[in-house]
Amino acid sequence: MLKLYGFSKVNAVARGHTRDLRVLWALQEMQLPFEIAGMDHPAHELNTDAYRRLSPFEQIPALDDDGLLLSESAAILVYLAKKTGRLMPGDSAGEAQVLRWCFAAMNTVEPPMLALMVLDWSADGSCAKHREFLVGWVNRVLTNLNLWLTDREFVATTEFSIADILMAHVLSAGVKDESLVAPYPRVLAYRGRCLARPAWQRAHAAYCERVVAG
Amino acid sequence: MLKLYGFSKVNAVARGHTRDLRVLWALQEMQLPFEIAGMDHPAHELNTDAYRRLSPFEQIPALDDDGLLLSESAAILVYLAKKTGRLMPGDSAGEAQVLRWCFAAMNTVEPPMLALMVLDWSADGSCAKHREFLVGWVNRVLTNLNLWLTDREFVATTEFSIADILMAHVLSAGVKDESLVAPYPRVLAYRGRCLARPAWQRAHAAYCERVVAG
Repeated sequence: MLKLYGFSKVNAVARGHTRDLRVLWALQEMQLPFEIAGMDHPAHELNTDAYRRLSPFEQIPALDDDGLLLSESAAILVYLAKKTGRLMPGDSAGEAQVLRWCFAAMNTVEPPMLALMVLDWSADGSCAKHREFLVGWVNRVLTNLNLWLTDREFVATTEFSIADILMAHVLSAGVKDESLVAPYPRVLAYRGRCLARPAWQRAHAAYCERVVAG
Repeated sequence: MLKLYGFSKVNAVARGHTRDLRVLWALQEMQLPFEIAGMDHPAHELNTDAYRRLSPFEQIPALDDDGLLLSESAAILVYLAKKTGRLMPGDSAGEAQVLRWCFAAMNTVEPPMLALMVLDWSADGSCAKHREFLVGWVNRVLTNLNLWLTDREFVATTEFSIADILMAHVLSAGVKDESLVAPYPRVLAYRGRCLARPAWQRAHAAYCERVVAG
């Protein structure tokens, strides 16, 4: 049985934003049976040699599939897509496009959004010039994504794929201030299309029921 | 013939740091013939509909392999590894580990380093508290990478892989201040091992010869 290491407790602010949700969404799309190993947060359980064998950077999620150990949410999604033949085309050209958009979500769209979020957590309010730079960076990325979504339903291919799970989660969990995405109608419609999927609704509802305040 | 869209002009500060070098390194490892489409920088050529069809976020590098168009340096490396059967194991478990470490380089190790570099470019010097937070984040990542490299020659498997190209490039191009990595002897030795490869030496020398100050 697939064993997913995810959160069992998350503080109210982080609920819905944790990366185990990406895998939980994919598992619902693929209708794969799984069990959850609930990790606490803030978690000394993460900071152990045993957990670092699964997840070298002490991150959630991690996956144990009968001894095959994986971390990095995007890598877990690629693995599950290959295992099931779902949410990624089987031909090499289609697979290349899905991987391109997995990396785009993780390495082009998420970094400026994450940098902005981390700035707002950790700064003492004196970083106006840097904040302005980061907001500009986010806007450049969203402008191009909005353009790409002209006449496209999903980012990588004509079908919904694991790249859309990553991108839609980045565009929702990664955005603290909705006014950032508001000027981009196609990005908003795309995100709405992805989050309206029954598999996301099921994954999110089960997560909210399970995950309690830490 | 593979056509790689890379830089032809780079200012002195950015030389060696641009992401086309990751693909140039892989092409040398794989001994694949290719031609370079040199883009200028700062580049209005990037900001065109034609280039956005190759690279939706107007980034370098992009690849055109007889009409198969790709962007995102990591996705290009995965594509080339599959095309050649080089620098990635052929079995699904080995491939999953290499992909895990490609995503780790791009989404776990690079983001805090990039956030710190961008802060130092763009801030007006008033962000001491935020900077301290980012330095702490970089150190947590490097501590765990240093631990992972105990008794390991390369990050993903026992052989050098595309994940090592990405990780070694992040650990060199992503580090402006060497005192950040100095406390991590296994990270330093690992980076040195990767950068000592003849394919990197050839790729870097050819790039330096070709790329002129912009």
